[in-house]
Amino acid sequence: MADCIFCKILNGEIPSQKVYEDELVYAFRDINPAAPQHILIIPREHIAGANALEEKHKELVGHIILTAQKIARQEGFAEDGFRIVNNCGENAGQTVFHLHFHLLAGGKFDQMV
Amino acid sequence: MADCIFCKILNGEIPSQKVYEDELVYAFRDINPAAPQHILIIPREHIAGANALEEKHKELVGHIILTAQKIARQEGFAEDGFRIVNNCGENAGQTVFHLHFHLLAGGKFDQMV
Repeated sequence: MADCIFCKILNGEIPSQKVYEDELVYAFRDINPAAPQHILIIPREHIAGANALEEKHKELVGHIILTAQKIARQEGFAEDGFRIVNNCGENAGQTVFHLHFHLLAGGKFDQMV
Repeated sequence: MADCIFCKILNGEIPSQKVYEDELVYAFRDINPAAPQHILIIPREHIAGANALEEKHKELVGHIILTAQKIARQEGFAEDGFRIVNNCGENAGQTVFHLHFHLLAGGKFDQMV
């Protein structure tokens, strides 16, 4: 998608601090971290958000969640704990309309909304 | 698991307010809601949490996320927006060690941790 900043990150037009990548997903550090560790995991395929998911994306979405676990181990915070968040829609806090899961860690989290 | 309260909810030993169910997952209202809409989606299989996920669970996890979207439509808050949260470990706020995804809606959410 020409106007999508995450697609621009995927094609290298916008720089990012890579944490992990494979053939299906890319993960990078959030430039406005909400926690000591704040990583975004996105599919290479442009999907607008959780409302746009179809049955065919089931395995891809499962892969994203398993990638969160993999990154937590890679970065050394799996045992301390982590939070995975997906915001769908502006009310929920979605600002970029390319599906992304937040991986948050490095603190004790008390609230969810 | 004999001591797991979500397994007890699944087998009917503990009552719950059902929102959705199918052969793989069960969804019910959180008894201590953090938002006007607060639903928990759990797999029927006992999995301790996101750290315990294996490759074989990929499709099940994808199904849980797609179920969140399905419930959002069923309950009428898909367009207004929703948040999906998984807490892994006590620091992240996990209190029951049976994998569950929170589906939160009904407000404007500003924070993620």
